[in-house]
Amino acid sequence: MKEWLYQHLLQLNTTETMNQLEGFTRLGYSQDEVKAMQAFQNIAKSLNMTTERDEAGNIHAVWNPAGSDKSPLAFVSHLDTVTNGGGYDGLAGILCGLGVIKRLQDEKFKPVRPISIICFASEESDRFGVSTLGSKAVAGKIKNDLKESLASLIDKNGVSIREAVESTGLSWDHFDQAEKSKTSYHRVIELHIEQGTQIEVAGKEAAAVQAIACPVRLIVTIDGKSGHTGTTPMHNRQDALLAAAPIISFTSAKAIELADEAGVPLVATVSSIDCSPNAITVIPGRIELGIDIRSVDDTSKEKMAHAIRDELISVEQEFGVTTKVQELVNNPSVLLDTDVHQSLLESIEEAGYLSYSMNSGAGHDIMNMASKWPSGLIFIPCRDGVSHHPSEHASIEDLEKGVTIMTHYAKKEAGGSSLED
Amino acid sequence: MKEWLYQHLLQLNTTETMNQLEGFTRLGYSQDEVKAMQAFQNIAKSLNMTTERDEAGNIHAVWNPAGSDKSPLAFVSHLDTVTNGGGYDGLAGILCGLGVIKRLQDEKFKPVRPISIICFASEESDRFGVSTLGSKAVAGKIKNDLKESLASLIDKNGVSIREAVESTGLSWDHFDQAEKSKTSYHRVIELHIEQGTQIEVAGKEAAAVQAIACPVRLIVTIDGKSGHTGTTPMHNRQDALLAAAPIISFTSAKAIELADEAGVPLVATVSSIDCSPNAITVIPGRIELGIDIRSVDDTSKEKMAHAIRDELISVEQEFGVTTKVQELVNNPSVLLDTDVHQSLLESIEEAGYLSYSMNSGAGHDIMNMASKWPSGLIFIPCRDGVSHHPSEHASIEDLEKGVTIMTHYAKKEAGGSSLED
Repeated sequence: MKEWLYQHLLQLNTTETMNQLEGFTRLGYSQDEVKAMQAFQNIAKSLNMTTERDEAGNIHAVWNPAGSDKSPLAFVSHLDTVTNGGGYDGLAGILCGLGVIKRLQDEKFKPVRPISIICFASEESDRFGVSTLGSKAVAGKIKNDLKESLASLIDKNGVSIREAVESTGLSWDHFDQAEKSKTSYHRVIELHIEQGTQIEVAGKEAAAVQAIACPVRLIVTIDGKSGHTGTTPMHNRQDALLAAAPIISFTSAKAIELADEAGVPLVATVSSIDCSPNAITVIPGRIELGIDIRSVDDTSKEKMAHAIRDELISVEQEFGVTTKVQELVNNPSVLLDTDVHQSLLESIEEAGYLSYSMNSGAGHDIMNMASKWPSGLIFIPCRDGVSHHPSEHASIEDLEKGVTIMTHYAKKEAGGSSLED
Repeated sequence: MKEWLYQHLLQLNTTETMNQLEGFTRLGYSQDEVKAMQAFQNIAKSLNMTTERDEAGNIHAVWNPAGSDKSPLAFVSHLDTVTNGGGYDGLAGILCGLGVIKRLQDEKFKPVRPISIICFASEESDRFGVSTLGSKAVAGKIKNDLKESLASLIDKNGVSIREAVESTGLSWDHFDQAEKSKTSYHRVIELHIEQGTQIEVAGKEAAAVQAIACPVRLIVTIDGKSGHTGTTPMHNRQDALLAAAPIISFTSAKAIELADEAGVPLVATVSSIDCSPNAITVIPGRIELGIDIRSVDDTSKEKMAHAIRDELISVEQEFGVTTKVQELVNNPSVLLDTDVHQSLLESIEEAGYLSYSMNSGAGHDIMNMASKWPSGLIFIPCRDGVSHHPSEHASIEDLEKGVTIMTHYAKKEAGGSSLED
């Protein structure tokens, strides 16, 4: 199984080596993502799965050896990455799902229920600022107002979502038809690398997630006045970057303070900055900051956002600038199904590993699926907790651990028996 | 003359109205700059001037009604702008130079010496980070090592200087042949908008410049570690943007402090910032800051640069990042010719205006010309001292003032008399 996992890790990453200085870049609805999804389809077909691409570009691979009309157990994840990301985020879930089918077939186990692997399109928010587009469509969340407001988003190269989606052969007008009914799935399980070190710190080996900390995301615009850097006296400036600096420092310090007060983890990051005109001889006239705030405690997130708004008022007064806050995302945290959570913890233990129950600081496709179907999330460790970075790494041992845990879960939930039994 | 100036202001800006929300964008060696230079050539020809484009793309227009072989009096400036700049920076000097020819011809004044107007290419550093390319070539400064190191510079779109220069029909290999000999010019005069408010604050009407504060420019690179914004605990981060924030604040505060100490104006600006990967879900892994430091006092500039280097050491320790400083530019300040300066002050007074003697916080083409020929710089006021911005503005009255001052100077230095006298 280890060699099988390694070879298919390379295939899904459409590469011949995992040693990539610049990491992997497969943005949502890009040809790079399409290529990885085609690799997934080829592997699924070689495992006797039927595959289908839906209206949102998600690939549904189904193994139904019993020819059952029961609703399938679905393993879900994605293959897109952030810019210069790693080869495991998202991909590990797809790979382990395929590994489960491979192992069940090797064991000649014939499940009663069909087992589905869904590879969602465009999970990362890197390209358009909005995450989990494919799973949102399947869960029926991309409709009406949201669909309309999404249509106006463009990537760094000025390409709209509609153009990106249609460049992969889909139709944006039909995008929402990817929605599936409430009876479409029995249980939905995602496996993901932890992207942190809690499992390791707790001395455990794998985790089942209880709740997902969904982000509040703010775009803060600071308008000052550009001018010549050589001729404008220091006391006569409205330097937007100079006004942005204390906001950056404040955001970090306040997150630490609020987390201490509430006793609940809270993280807040000024993660993007765009300066205009960004020329060496011109005083910055406008700064746009992207701020990401996360906690499973929605009240703490609100307090953090509120504190930033307060701080902007002082900054306006001190630096003679004007500021504006746009709330890009404000999603309440998601509680996953308690029965599925319990069952996953048991599967971890049954597979022979020490189980850990935790919350997730990152959002995942499963958030959307949880709104419609009983859903669960498994974490396997990754090296030093690093993710979204070229040095992201999960060992083949940990990937095999994922396969073993999910195989135990599949046998329970999909039913059936080994033909050899 | 006012109506003539206004019509030719529009022509040189290749526009039908000066009311431009986004200002003007004519980058060096772009088709926009070429178009403005063609407008200049057309106007010069209509004033019976011969025109020639040199190997660096500078346009030399010469009026030599006496058919003299004496070295000309040269008025110099440029027509390129920063991104979203104004329609007066650089252009005012070209327009007033043409205005002098127009007025002398209206007065039927026949100068003994030829009068030249040189429109230099690519004065602004906006595109390639290096300023005054055209005048550097004429002064013989683009040779050997510098020429080689320039060749590797690229603009934001990945276009090299060689490609940009050659896209306007020139040859980069012959670029340095634009150099002129020491006997080529009698005097060289640039007129520019002040880009500040010193003339107005002093209650004066026009200025002759004594010295030019040339910049020290630093590129500071801060390397931290990118990671997932949701899963990386606050205490386990090496956030490059968080480390950059105190540098931005420090640069401004320290400039004010050093200027107070030395009693000499000093300005320092963090004017550009580039964040990588600049994605909302990823902790900033690398920040590049562009810092511009100016003073006529070279010692103060050095102290400022030194203080920034010291501050970076503390930042490395506090935020667990590594930093690197690249000195992009370090030009000593330029003293202009004292005789020319005195003569320009007199011309201002003779023209009926209150004269002011000052230093320039901004660099200009005349810096390069001053290294080879007796050179002077005239400032006329501009509204609120704003420059490099769409709201940059000089009144037609102030432009006419420039023409009148330079006409007085031309009569003294080019000699000759009105045919009507």
